[in-house]
Amino acid sequence: MQDRKIDKTLAIKREASPFLDEILGWAFPVLDHGFIRVISYMGDDDAIDQAARLSYGQGTKRKNEAKGLINYLMGHRHTSPFEMCELKIHVKLPIFVMRQWVRHRMASLNEYSARYSVLSNEFYLPQLQDIQLQSTSNKQGRDGELDGQKAVDVRNIIQGHSMQSYAIYEMLISDDVDLARELARMSLPVNFYTEMYWKIDLHNLFHFLMLRADPHAQKEIRVYAELLEWIVGKWVPYAFDAYRVYRKGAISFSAHEALMIRAALAMPSLSADEKPVWADQLSVREWKAFVVKIAQIT
Amino acid sequence: MQDRKIDKTLAIKREASPFLDEILGWAFPVLDHGFIRVISYMGDDDAIDQAARLSYGQGTKRKNEAKGLINYLMGHRHTSPFEMCELKIHVKLPIFVMRQWVRHRMASLNEYSARYSVLSNEFYLPQLQDIQLQSTSNKQGRDGELDGQKAVDVRNIIQGHSMQSYAIYEMLISDDVDLARELARMSLPVNFYTEMYWKIDLHNLFHFLMLRADPHAQKEIRVYAELLEWIVGKWVPYAFDAYRVYRKGAISFSAHEALMIRAALAMPSLSADEKPVWADQLSVREWKAFVVKIAQIT
Amino acid sequence: MQDRKIDKTLAIKREASPFLDEILGWAFPVLDHGFIRVISYMGDDDAIDQAARLSYGQGTKRKNEAKGLINYLMGHRHTSPFEMCELKIHVKLPIFVMRQWVRHRMASLNEYSARYSVLSNEFYLPQLQDIQLQSTSNKQGRDGELDGQKAVDVRNIIQGHSMQSYAIYEMLISDDVDLARELARMSLPVNFYTEMYWKIDLHNLFHFLMLRADPHAQKEIRVYAELLEWIVGKWVPYAFDAYRVYRKGAISFSAHEALMIRAALAMPSLSADEKPVWADQLSVREWKAFVVKIAQIT
Amino acid sequence: MQDRKIDKTLAIKREASPFLDEILGWAFPVLDHGFIRVISYMGDDDAIDQAARLSYGQGTKRKNEAKGLINYLMGHRHTSPFEMCELKIHVKLPIFVMRQWVRHRMASLNEYSARYSVLSNEFYLPQLQDIQLQSTSNKQGRDGELDGQKAVDVRNIIQGHSMQSYAIYEMLISDDVDLARELARMSLPVNFYTEMYWKIDLHNLFHFLMLRADPHAQKEIRVYAELLEWIVGKWVPYAFDAYRVYRKGAISFSAHEALMIRAALAMPSLSADEKPVWADQLSVREWKAFVVKIAQIT
Repeated sequence: MQDRKIDKTLAIKREASPFLDEILGWAFPVLDHGFIRVISYMGDDDAIDQAARLSYGQGTKRKNEAKGLINYLMGHRHTSPFEMCELKIHVKLPIFVMRQWVRHRMASLNEYSARYSVLSNEFYLPQLQDIQLQSTSNKQGRDGELDGQKAVDVRNIIQGHSMQSYAIYEMLISDDVDLARELARMSLPVNFYTEMYWKIDLHNLFHFLMLRADPHAQKEIRVYAELLEWIVGKWVPYAFDAYRVYRKGAISFSAHEALMIRAALAMPSLSADEKPVWADQLSVREWKAFVVKIAQIT
Repeated sequence: MQDRKIDKTLAIKREASPFLDEILGWAFPVLDHGFIRVISYMGDDDAIDQAARLSYGQGTKRKNEAKGLINYLMGHRHTSPFEMCELKIHVKLPIFVMRQWVRHRMASLNEYSARYSVLSNEFYLPQLQDIQLQSTSNKQGRDGELDGQKAVDVRNIIQGHSMQSYAIYEMLISDDVDLARELARMSLPVNFYTEMYWKIDLHNLFHFLMLRADPHAQKEIRVYAELLEWIVGKWVPYAFDAYRVYRKGAISFSAHEALMIRAALAMPSLSADEKPVWADQLSVREWKAFVVKIAQIT
Repeated sequence: MQDRKIDKTLAIKREASPFLDEILGWAFPVLDHGFIRVISYMGDDDAIDQAARLSYGQGTKRKNEAKGLINYLMGHRHTSPFEMCELKIHVKLPIFVMRQWVRHRMASLNEYSARYSVLSNEFYLPQLQDIQLQSTSNKQGRDGELDGQKAVDVRNIIQGHSMQSYAIYEMLISDDVDLARELARMSLPVNFYTEMYWKIDLHNLFHFLMLRADPHAQKEIRVYAELLEWIVGKWVPYAFDAYRVYRKGAISFSAHEALMIRAALAMPSLSADEKPVWADQLSVREWKAFVVKIAQIT
Repeated sequence: MQDRKIDKTLAIKREASPFLDEILGWAFPVLDHGFIRVISYMGDDDAIDQAARLSYGQGTKRKNEAKGLINYLMGHRHTSPFEMCELKIHVKLPIFVMRQWVRHRMASLNEYSARYSVLSNEFYLPQLQDIQLQSTSNKQGRDGELDGQKAVDVRNIIQGHSMQSYAIYEMLISDDVDLARELARMSLPVNFYTEMYWKIDLHNLFHFLMLRADPHAQKEIRVYAELLEWIVGKWVPYAFDAYRVYRKGAISFSAHEALMIRAALAMPSLSADEKPVWADQLSVREWKAFVVKIAQIT
C-alpha cells in the first residue's frame, strides 16, 4: 500500500508542437501597432484523443483513428477533451478591441496597468479602405467606403485628435503637474494600445474564434482572430479541421427551417443505401448518417 | 455631484411568475424516491428582453416585440441576456445521477453531507420496463427489454443487494461499532439517494437541458431534465419556445453535409421572392433569410 | 412511482427583502453622472442558512442560530451557501471604471453597445479635491492635492478635451460624414460613461467588495463598491456582518508574522480558561478558540 | 501596417521544468490502488513573474527579485499571474473521493465512463489504523481507533461486501443477463475506483490544496492533495513557498480577535524602528510592515 513502488514504466514526454516551438515569441503584426506573440502552450491533437479515450476506456491505434475520433467529438459537442489544450499569448491591441476581447470570461489574463505605468504614445489609425460608412442593413456594422477625400479627412481628424490627447496626457503626468497616472489616462481615447498576456483552453478558444473571426465581428478584432485561426490550424490540425467542418462551416437550421428543407428535398428520392454522385464529400457511413438526420426532421 | 438626489421616479417591482409562485416548494416526484422542488427564481421573459434592449439602446413597445427579440437572441446565439434569469431547485436524486449532474460546472450547489449526517435508507430501483439490455448500436446506452422473468430477477437482485448494503451501513455506524460516517458510507452503492440545492442561470440551464433531456442521455437523469423543461416552459414561455425552435429542435449540418443539401435542393428553383406553399411555417421575412442561408453554402 | 402524487404540503413563499422591494429601481447617484439601480434579487440570510442546513442535514430553530451559522460559514470559508443569493443591478459608470469592473469574471453582464447605438455626451470630471498627485509611496495610487490653481487648470483641461472629443464624435457620425459608429467611438476618451446590467452571486459580490471597496482601489470604483456595501448590509444583514468581521475586518498574518505575534504575546500568560477583562468582544467560546489559534502557531 | 514584418528577434523557448520532465507519466501510488501521474504542464515561477511584470510595465533583473515579487503577489492576493501555470494529471481514485474532488469547478476533467466501459474490480479498503471512530468533537470527522479486533472485523465486512458487489456487477453484465452497463453499475459502492484526467491552473490548484491538504479534509482525499503539494513544490518552488507562508501557514484573525491581539501586545512597546531579537524571521522591511499591520487594528 504505502509501500507500493512508483511505477516508472509509464514514463512519457511532454507533447511538443514543432511549429509552435519554432515561432514561440515571434511578434506577428496585427493592425498598425498591435501584435500576437505565442508565449507557451500545452497539449496537441493527441492530448485530445487521449482524454477522450480515457472516457471511453479504450485505445486507438492509428493516426487516422485520432482524426476520426476528434471529428466525432466536435460533431457531437463532446467538448471537455478540447479543454485539455492551452494556449498562452501576448497581445498588443487597441483598448476598444480589448473591451470586446475581455467579454470572454473563461480565460486568464494580465493586462498592462495604466494606474502603475505610463502608456505609450501608440494609437490605432484605420487604413483608408477601413474607414467605412455606418451600415444601413446591419445596425452594428459598417458597409461601403467614404468617398476618397472624406476618408482622408476622417483619418486626419482621428490622428490629430489622438496626438493631441497624448500631448495632454504627457502634460498631466509631467513633473510639473504630476497628476496621478490613474487620473491622467482619462484623457486617452479608446484607440490607444494596451497589452496583455492571455491564456485560454482550446474549447473556449474555438468559441472565441467562432464569434470573433465571424464576418459580423468588428474588423479590428477579427484580424486578431484570423491570425489566431492560422496559428491554431498549425498547432492542432485535426482539431482545427473539425472546428472548420463542424462548427465554423456548419449551418444550423431552426426547427421550422428544417421542415422546409425536408419538404424541398422531396425525401423519398434520398436513399441511405445509394449515395448519389454529387455526394462525393461524404463517406458511405456519413451519407447514411446524413439521410437519417434529414429523415429525423419531423 | 455627491449632492445629486436619489431618483425615485424609476421605481420598479421585482418580476414575479404567477406559475412559479403557485408551485414554489411543491415536491414533484421523479423516479421512485426523488423529487424536484422549485425554491426560488429571479427574472422572466421581460428580464431577458430588458437586458438585450440595454445593449441595443432602444425600447420595444409591444408584447410580441419581446417574443421576436428573444427569438432573435436565441437564433443568433446572443446568450448573455439569458444569464439574467436564475432558478434554484431542491433535488433528490440517486448518487449516479448526481455524478452526471455535477459535471455542469456553471452552477451553484450545496449537497447533503454523508460525512456529517446519516444517509437515509432510500435507493433507486428501476421499474421492470426500464431494466434493459446493453445497446448494441450505442455503446453507452441501453436498448431492448430483458425477457420477463430475467427483469424480475435483476430487480430482486438489486433490491436485495441495496437492502443488504444499508444493513451493513447501519451496523457500521451503530453505537456498538461507531465507525466514522465518512468511512461507513463506503458500503453504499451509487443507487442510493442524495439531495442538493442547485442554482443555475437560464443560459446554462438550457445547456443542461440540451444535454440531459436528449434521447441519448441516461433515462434516470433525463426524467429530471424533462420535468425541468416543463417547469421552464411555464416560467419563461418565450425563451423556452425559442430554445425549442432554435436549439433543441434545430438541426446542424456540417460544412460537408451542407453542400449535399445545396446540391439536393437544386438551388435555382428556390426564390427569395416567392415563398412556396409548403413553407407555411416561415414568415416572408424568415423565408428570405432561409434562402440566403441556403445560398451561403459554398 | 410515476403515480406518486405532487406533495404540496411543502409549499413555500419566495424570499422577499422589504428594503430592496422599497428601493427597487431607484437611481442612487455615484460620481457626477453615474448611478446604481437595483433591478432584482434572489435570496436572503435565510436562504444561506437553509442551504448550509441541507449540507449538515439538520435544522436551526431560532433567529440567532441563523446568525451564528452564517458567522461560522464565513469564518471557515464555507463559501457555497453564499452563492445561493443573487443581486442584479443597473450601473452607469465611466469606461475606465468599467474596465476594472469587468475583470470580475464570475458575473453576468449586458453592456450598452457603442457599435449599435450612439453614446451620450456624458463624461466623468473629477471634483477638485479628487484631482491628486501621483503617490510616491504607492506606485499605482494617488496622494496629496495639487495646489489650488493647478487643480482648477487640470479640471478645465480634461473638461475641454472631453467636450472636444465628443464634438469630433458627433461630427463623425453626422449625416454628412456618416462614419460607422464602431469607428467613430475611437475618438472618445475612457472617462465617457457607459451602462450595464450586472448580475452576481453574493459570494462573488463579497469578493468584488473586498477588492474594490478597499482603500487601495481607485477612488472612482471604490465609491460604487461602497454604495453596494451599504445596499448589501441592508439586504442580508447577517451575511454582511459576517463579511465585515471575518473578511473585510480580518487581519491575516503570514506564517513568519504569526511567529512574531506568538513571541510578542508571551504565550504562557494567555489561558483558555480565564478570559481577560480586555477580551470583552469575544464570547467565552470565541476566547477559547482564539487561544487555540494562537497556540497553533508553530 | 499589413506589410510590417514578423519580428523574430523576440523568439523564446517554452518553459521547462527538469523535475517534471523527469517524472512525467510515472505513477505515484496513493491509497491501495490509486495513483497520480503528471501528464503535462505549462509555465513555471518565471511565467508568474513575467505576467506580473507585464502588468507593472517593468522588468526584474535578478533571480531573487522574482522570488520577492511572487511573495508580494501571494501576500497581496494578486492571483491572476498564478493562473498562467497549468498542471494536467491522471488520477485513479475511489468514487467517494471523486465526489469531493469534482466540487472544484474551475478545472477541466475527463472521467472514465461506466456507461461505456466496464469498471475494474478494484475497491478501496482502508488500512487498519485508518478505520476510526466517529469524532465526537468534529461532526464530520473521525477520531480514535477502534479496538483491534473490531477494526479487523470492519475491514473484513467492507472487503466481503465489496467483493460481493462486484460479483453481482459481473453477473449483471455477463453475456447471460447482458444488463446495460449504465444500470449494472448501480450495484457498486462508492469505494470502487474510477479514473480521470484533471487539468487546473496554479491559482485554483492552490485553492484546492488549501481545502484538501487541510487536516479537516477527509484523509482519503488528503493523501492525494499532499502528494500534489510535494509535486508542486518541486515544480514552482517560489510560488509554493509563497503559498506555504502566505496562505497555508497564514493565520487570519477576525476583526474581533485582532483587537484582542492588539490589547495583548501592549502596542506602545513595539517600534517599527527597532526590530527585536526574536523577530529574526522577518527582514527589517517586513518588520516595519508588521508593526503597521498591528497598528492598523482599530
